Amino acid sequence: MPSPLRIVQYGLGPIGQATARSVLEKSTSERVRLAGAIDIDPDKVGRDVADLIGLDASCGVTVSDDAESVLAETAPDVVLHTTTSFLDEMHEQLRTCARAGAHVVSSTEELAYPYDRHPDLADDLDATAREHGVTVVGTGVNPGYAMDTLALTATGACQDVQQISVERLVNAGARRGPLQEKVGAGLSADAFAEKKATGTFGHIGLRESLLMLADGLGWSFDQIDERLDPVIAEKSVETPHAAVARDEVAGIHHTITGHVDSEILLSLDLKMYVGAREEHDRVHVEGNPPVDLKIRGGIFGDTATVAMLVNTAPLAAEARSGLHTMKDLPVPRAFATR
Amino acid sequence: MPSPLRIVQYGLGPIGQATARSVLEKSTSERVRLAGAIDIDPDKVGRDVADLIGLDASCGVTVSDDAESVLAETAPDVVLHTTTSFLDEMHEQLRTCARAGAHVVSSTEELAYPYDRHPDLADDLDATAREHGVTVVGTGVNPGYAMDTLALTATGACQDVQQISVERLVNAGARRGPLQEKVGAGLSADAFAEKKATGTFGHIGLRESLLMLADGLGWSFDQIDERLDPVIAEKSVETPHAAVARDEVAGIHHTITGHVDSEILLSLDLKMYVGAREEHDRVHVEGNPPVDLKIRGGIFGDTATVAMLVNTAPLAAEARSGLHTMKDLPVPRAFATR
Repeated sequence: MPSPLRIVQYGLGPIGQATARSVLEKSTSERVRLAGAIDIDPDKVGRDVADLIGLDASCGVTVSDDAESVLAETAPDVVLHTTTSFLDEMHEQLRTCARAGAHVVSSTEELAYPYDRHPDLADDLDATAREHGVTVVGTGVNPGYAMDTLALTATGACQDVQQISVERLVNAGARRGPLQEKVGAGLSADAFAEKKATGTFGHIGLRESLLMLADGLGWSFDQIDERLDPVIAEKSVETPHAAVARDEVAGIHHTITGHVDSEILLSLDLKMYVGAREEHDRVHVEGNPPVDLKIRGGIFGDTATVAMLVNTAPLAAEARSGLHTMKDLPVPRAFATR
Repeated sequence: MPSPLRIVQYGLGPIGQATARSVLEKSTSERVRLAGAIDIDPDKVGRDVADLIGLDASCGVTVSDDAESVLAETAPDVVLHTTTSFLDEMHEQLRTCARAGAHVVSSTEELAYPYDRHPDLADDLDATAREHGVTVVGTGVNPGYAMDTLALTATGACQDVQQISVERLVNAGARRGPLQEKVGAGLSADAFAEKKATGTFGHIGLRESLLMLADGLGWSFDQIDERLDPVIAEKSVETPHAAVARDEVAGIHHTITGHVDSEILLSLDLKMYVGAREEHDRVHVEGNPPVDLKIRGGIFGDTATVAMLVNTAPLAAEARSGLHTMKDLPVPRAFATR
């Protein structure tokens, strides 16, 4: 039995806390061990991680805001990184981890396929990762799994593929609070339009999913169309997590399509709104053979994002060094279960 | 653009011919090129592969029964190997390919997870593959995809997994002739029992799927139960490919379960019979989150086996050297499509 992977949790917001909790739960398997924790929030610094996430017993790992010291002292195998969605805000954090000789698995949506928005950053990260013999990869449930890796896998047994459409329908009312904020639940249509104009509102990563999937298939597009619209509540909806009045925004309908010669080759359709019914993930491959794959009830995002981060750690630790995307790693799978 | 992968087709039965055809079709992409063909059948030796598979124009590749010469003369990157289901009958063929410096992707069902039935052969193959810097992997639609790789991928976004059940229901009446023979369609119940007693009848590879999936999850069992029963036709069935009278065998129901402490953790259920309706593949993961994945209409095996072999070629060519199973390779995906 190899010794447990030493994990540092970098970022202790809601996702980071859930990730740390999952690592602690899996520690009994001796496959992973929480070795350190980093966050800049003064309310968190100095606290035991177990205390922070509401466990009874101490876990002996204290939150620090000094990333370099934590990395130097704990010499982690893998950093689970959950700080922000945007690469230009935090690429230096990734570089710091890589320089410390740690593989990095990050929830940063733009890292799921960084070559398009940030080609220079991607080149630099790849060079740094190779230089230090580590893997850097972005993942999560979406981007990272539901609308890209799963869809790519769905083509695995196809001789030919003409067209792919991917749908994800999420009832934001069944999810943690941040998601409702993210999809604008309860906003007026005008407030939604204002937020949308900032360019950082809504789901981040649909373009990354489209391009990772296309790259995996060897496809390129001459046109990409992206669209973000509000879903307006037709009647008032109330859930344990949210309340939306009639005519208010219930959530988002976000689509992206990749075209060649005016024909849609690849289409991703994401709806996340309070009150959505018959949640599902669906991949439809028009090909030989065709594939009509559906996950009834959908993949529950709150748990699944955490799972993807933790499950990718052992795969990243075994991969060739460099910057990768999910298409480059072995098939994702759970570990240290039961 | 890298130069095309040079492919040798080893074995030109129905699957091998279809694989060669797929490689020829994909040649226009300049990702692959058929470089050679091997078969021992005197009726095939000396013929142009294109002629053999019913294409009009010659492809310039002649079938030879001299494997070593073909490998030496064509120096293939990858051999697509489709000769038999059983490893002890043909492991020397794999070794010959590896010694010639070629990666091998084989449809040999026992190679999909060779460590259980043939641990010594697996060790030897791994050593030979490493020595010559090549990858050897067994794949296909089943084993290789529908009941193992896809099921493993279905757990990718799970924090915990308690139990997995996988179902595949195939209408053998819609498939090529060899499948009906394989499942005993048209036999009497007595004749089925006799064939079953040989131990080489029916679907090969369910045990391999179970164990590959378990290995991917880090699971091991204290008991494995396998069962093969005939499906008896309740009324006569006739399809373009098959005819089965009432009370004759329509096909097989093959199951395998992996247990720990008398509890079933993993269950694979395969039905292939003439007249099966509502074909599907299904993976049900009892976990956190749960996953209920279904492919409506199922994955059409004749095409999909060929696709898995061809699609695995570029992945095998990029992998670390050694003997691998599908859990070790990047997520399967189509290539050179459209």
